[in-house]
Amino acid sequence: MSNSYGTLFKISTFGESHGPAIGVIIDGCPAGLQIDESYIQSELDRRKPGQSKITTQRKEDDTFKILSGVFEGKSTGTPIAIVIENQDQRSKDYSHIAETFRPSHADYTYESKYGIRDYRGGGRSSARETAARVAAGAIAKLLLKQHGIDINAYVSEVGDIKTPHYTELDLSKTEENIVRCPDAVTAEKMIALIDQVRLDRDTIGGIVTCVIKNTPVGLGEPVFDKLHAEIGKAMLSINAVKGFEYGSGFEGTRLRGSQHNDEFYNEGGKIKTRTNFSGGIQGGISNGEDIYFNVAFKPVATIMQDQPSVDKHGNETTVSGKGRHDPCVVPRAVPIVEAMAALVLADFLLRAKTSRL
Amino acid sequence: MSNSYGTLFKISTFGESHGPAIGVIIDGCPAGLQIDESYIQSELDRRKPGQSKITTQRKEDDTFKILSGVFEGKSTGTPIAIVIENQDQRSKDYSHIAETFRPSHADYTYESKYGIRDYRGGGRSSARETAARVAAGAIAKLLLKQHGIDINAYVSEVGDIKTPHYTELDLSKTEENIVRCPDAVTAEKMIALIDQVRLDRDTIGGIVTCVIKNTPVGLGEPVFDKLHAEIGKAMLSINAVKGFEYGSGFEGTRLRGSQHNDEFYNEGGKIKTRTNFSGGIQGGISNGEDIYFNVAFKPVATIMQDQPSVDKHGNETTVSGKGRHDPCVVPRAVPIVEAMAALVLADFLLRAKTSRL
Amino acid sequence: MSNSYGTLFKISTFGESHGPAIGVIIDGCPAGLQIDESYIQSELDRRKPGQSKITTQRKEDDTFKILSGVFEGKSTGTPIAIVIENQDQRSKDYSHIAETFRPSHADYTYESKYGIRDYRGGGRSSARETAARVAAGAIAKLLLKQHGIDINAYVSEVGDIKTPHYTELDLSKTEENIVRCPDAVTAEKMIALIDQVRLDRDTIGGIVTCVIKNTPVGLGEPVFDKLHAEIGKAMLSINAVKGFEYGSGFEGTRLRGSQHNDEFYNEGGKIKTRTNFSGGIQGGISNGEDIYFNVAFKPVATIMQDQPSVDKHGNETTVSGKGRHDPCVVPRAVPIVEAMAALVLADFLLRAKTSRL
Amino acid sequence: MSNSYGTLFKISTFGESHGPAIGVIIDGCPAGLQIDESYIQSELDRRKPGQSKITTQRKEDDTFKILSGVFEGKSTGTPIAIVIENQDQRSKDYSHIAETFRPSHADYTYESKYGIRDYRGGGRSSARETAARVAAGAIAKLLLKQHGIDINAYVSEVGDIKTPHYTELDLSKTEENIVRCPDAVTAEKMIALIDQVRLDRDTIGGIVTCVIKNTPVGLGEPVFDKLHAEIGKAMLSINAVKGFEYGSGFEGTRLRGSQHNDEFYNEGGKIKTRTNFSGGIQGGISNGEDIYFNVAFKPVATIMQDQPSVDKHGNETTVSGKGRHDPCVVPRAVPIVEAMAALVLADFLLRAKTSRL
Repeated sequence: MSNSYGTLFKISTFGESHGPAIGVIIDGCPAGLQIDESYIQSELDRRKPGQSKITTQRKEDDTFKILSGVFEGKSTGTPIAIVIENQDQRSKDYSHIAETFRPSHADYTYESKYGIRDYRGGGRSSARETAARVAAGAIAKLLLKQHGIDINAYVSEVGDIKTPHYTELDLSKTEENIVRCPDAVTAEKMIALIDQVRLDRDTIGGIVTCVIKNTPVGLGEPVFDKLHAEIGKAMLSINAVKGFEYGSGFEGTRLRGSQHNDEFYNEGGKIKTRTNFSGGIQGGISNGEDIYFNVAFKPVATIMQDQPSVDKHGNETTVSGKGRHDPCVVPRAVPIVEAMAALVLADFLLRAKTSRL
Repeated sequence: MSNSYGTLFKISTFGESHGPAIGVIIDGCPAGLQIDESYIQSELDRRKPGQSKITTQRKEDDTFKILSGVFEGKSTGTPIAIVIENQDQRSKDYSHIAETFRPSHADYTYESKYGIRDYRGGGRSSARETAARVAAGAIAKLLLKQHGIDINAYVSEVGDIKTPHYTELDLSKTEENIVRCPDAVTAEKMIALIDQVRLDRDTIGGIVTCVIKNTPVGLGEPVFDKLHAEIGKAMLSINAVKGFEYGSGFEGTRLRGSQHNDEFYNEGGKIKTRTNFSGGIQGGISNGEDIYFNVAFKPVATIMQDQPSVDKHGNETTVSGKGRHDPCVVPRAVPIVEAMAALVLADFLLRAKTSRL
Repeated sequence: MSNSYGTLFKISTFGESHGPAIGVIIDGCPAGLQIDESYIQSELDRRKPGQSKITTQRKEDDTFKILSGVFEGKSTGTPIAIVIENQDQRSKDYSHIAETFRPSHADYTYESKYGIRDYRGGGRSSARETAARVAAGAIAKLLLKQHGIDINAYVSEVGDIKTPHYTELDLSKTEENIVRCPDAVTAEKMIALIDQVRLDRDTIGGIVTCVIKNTPVGLGEPVFDKLHAEIGKAMLSINAVKGFEYGSGFEGTRLRGSQHNDEFYNEGGKIKTRTNFSGGIQGGISNGEDIYFNVAFKPVATIMQDQPSVDKHGNETTVSGKGRHDPCVVPRAVPIVEAMAALVLADFLLRAKTSRL
Repeated sequence: MSNSYGTLFKISTFGESHGPAIGVIIDGCPAGLQIDESYIQSELDRRKPGQSKITTQRKEDDTFKILSGVFEGKSTGTPIAIVIENQDQRSKDYSHIAETFRPSHADYTYESKYGIRDYRGGGRSSARETAARVAAGAIAKLLLKQHGIDINAYVSEVGDIKTPHYTELDLSKTEENIVRCPDAVTAEKMIALIDQVRLDRDTIGGIVTCVIKNTPVGLGEPVFDKLHAEIGKAMLSINAVKGFEYGSGFEGTRLRGSQHNDEFYNEGGKIKTRTNFSGGIQGGISNGEDIYFNVAFKPVATIMQDQPSVDKHGNETTVSGKGRHDPCVVPRAVPIVEAMAALVLADFLLRAKTSRL
């Protein structure tokens, strides 16, 4: 198991879907940071289940409690522990999978690896775990705000419905609809599609795009902890993610160097690039331009249909979807993507302090 | 800086493009592994410059020397240090960039982050650094072979020329042509395109696909060090990589759950899946099916054309491509992708030994 | 801050003396371990305050709650989170040190390092933090028991009263008296001394000796993570520890090699040493003999006397001991020493699984 | 194996006693540090064999070569690789131990752990490995000098001959004699004793004391990476070390709190302590006073006498000392102790940069 992330701004998470609680320890948050608890709650609310008709109907308030590391409203430099109690477990919904492996879930691999598995709600493999990431990410965001860094994720694709490029969108509108797409017209189509998929007792995938503005030059630690390599790992560690690309991404492979290179110029004393195929990162280090990247989410594996499968003894059987699940994960994934991006940037901000004498 | 990779099978690399040598320490290779030096050399030869008309003409034999950790042909459990001397540096080719930032290179970001930069050949940001990865990866591959694990990367796209899906290819043919595409007809087209691009004094991007067969069930360490998250980071840490996807990847986002789920069945007592959109990984842990993924490489930034840029004082200037460079990086990237995949798997093989009592 | 310990069997602790709770996450406990909760409680009881007349009178039940990682009584391989609520905080006892630095405490250094400090009960620098270590150590001990490894610590010195060498003691008698010294006659003297010191409103130091039996050959990871180096660090990380020695220790420096060397012999097919100045460790790796070491604890810094000091503005002032404190820390340190030793060994047990093919 | 040390100023070492070379990579040295190569050499010279009649007669120039990370005399922020070739191996001196375990050496434990062992000169377990530490430590010292931090180790005990407390010594005189004891009279006695021991074909242990002046307040990372805990681990990782104590150490356990507490006072606006039983460290963090500690070295295990032992098949046999060895290790250990202390402090200096906003 590896349930820690980060080098200097480091989180360690714990908790199963149907255990008493989930939570996180943040070790390495600099002392003196004002910890705005209502902001943490608002971030958790963006991720919590049951928030709209296109999300799972599991009811979790996701209220949190800080157990340590904050004194008189400020971080003290000691570990910040946050606990979120689980409330609306319906573990008996899961007794049918105690011995059966759901297709494209982690049941089989966990059982094989550990020889034991808390099957209730998927146990540790449940996306419920990401609430702890969002809580920690909220604190990372508070740190980033001190440096003016701004992180905006949004839903750019659901199935084959997609938005224009981010530079043509008003990212301040993301929270104005339940699918978290800043383009109102596209949002409506996405919502209709997800709703149809839900009625079909099926699920659908999508893409979250994230844009980070005002990053200082110099974040990222080559040659292995390149900025985009860490962001990529952080995104790929989120449940259901199948792909990551930044800047020009996969499309960029079809371009020629003469088209793709980002020319430098001097804008009022500041070095800028005319295009930004680099996605704000050159040689693994931020160059001050917008960082932007796409994260691909597969369709949720739990569908309300019968599917052939096998049990732990190898017998072929049928498994049918129970429990409460999202027909499409991307609207709730938006704050998770932001949280993980914030954790990566906060870590690199601290690491960058030691680059030179 | 972060020049180490891995938890238990850990590498630390060093070296600049035009310094005296580059190299790597492998710490954590289990004792008793037969170290086949000719195999290491053959892997380095696959990556080395000057191997064909479509690669850079820099001449480096890339002969290596093992300084420690091997006794009477076997690993001893102590660190294995490997050094590769640089030979064909032409540092004076680079004097023009001592003060100037090449577009889409790491010159500007390194200068900003460190306040000093070995500009010769790109210094540490040069892809020359990957030779050390290939040497270490060769040892990881020797370890994997003991477990029957087989890693095959190949060029699947150059510009807009692409191969069919890997299941329709004979991966044993990859080394039969200079572009490292197992499909002979496609390979010819790719070579022609690269050659044209070279004559145009330009560059082009491409995609490397990697297929890993015979992985045991159980590799990968959730929730952060998921198998695909580590592979993704490893790939994204390679120079010029802009994207990573595994299994159904970005395309899979357009499918419905009912199409995308991989049904389990029992094949002669072994649990298998009928489809493999999961790419051999479920919940971040290998499930025994083929692992496959795509790695997107941008067009090489150095082009033999004049480009507008700025110098370190912010003055606008023109920079023109000098030195010897690849018109397309993917043929030489194939062994690098394999090496990084091997390092990730070797690490997880060791980590998996401690999953249960 | 660094609140994690271990490489594969890794703990992360949190909590302040007067915050709502303290706790620990154990990440890397192998799946399938029977978690005996009553054993964890019994270990916490050995450490808890208020257990006898020679310990602090703070009342803490130190009952714990497992929030994750255990299913149907067994570890699942996922992180085990344990929380212990604080109950008997009397924070107002500490208002006098909000602005004043107690001599030989961490008040001044924390204030200087972090610019903010939870002064109540010493905050994070309080030895209350060690309860989390004991809880985690109890789980490590359960793992070690599976391998037959047995850890016994005891009080060997209080002030200038000392026991004979461990080989002359019956270590099963340690818990028979409140000072945790297996030699009843010496124990009585120690208790009398501590009681006198308490009446003098003063404190006294002492030494805890630890003996580990049945360690397999091969634990320890040279060259930096030598077995004794990690044990030493673990011990030195405990509050109030000033020194560590193993085997012949400081006394051994006065011997000649011809006296000090431990001759090997064959005892019924097993390689043994006739003497054990090596303390069971050679070249940083266990050799199967008893591991034994001494840990020096300074006199507790809080004394019930007035002492000159300065406040945070540099003004000279007087600070007088308040709160409830131990006159001598070693009786309660015994389970802490055992817990840290167990954590180190559990980690090396896992690491040793990857030493060779 | 664990051959890396440090979190931000991190070293990775490699090399066997009789392999082609030993060396080290330093990853994390801040960019812009002037690298004085003659200083590195002078530190290596203090450690090198054959420097006087009381050290081993093995001849090694210990000249080093920097392979990377330095450009135009300055660190660039990229890994600094240093290689030292082995020259005077006499491997055939060691053929007698290919199958036999020398008492109190690492032969038996390495063989048991790894199943294979480079027996020549002790292989990786040889103290030759410490040359790499000294080279890296020299660079750490250059970094510390920029902050005015001054590290002075010296021989304080050989057998039962000892110096007065460090506050009564002139530490600038340490290098004036071959035993590295700043007290000339004591030094002569030590030299005479070592010489006698050598004639007796025996060895003797000793103690190195180290004093660090001008440390800033705030170094050390509780609760596990306390300053003294890391220093302790670093010292215990050096070959032949059996104990570590700082400040009042083991003696301090006999004092009462009222004697042992270090009162704060204000000296011209600076907060100081009147005594320094704390050894410059409170709560695991430096307080600005002198840091001082003792390191116990056992008598060297190789003696020029016949000793009973066993071979790898368990047969009892006799092993007699061959090769060239030190009769007492402490004079050459002085620069090693300083190097390890410097590495720990350099790491904490960097880590301290992120403690607060």
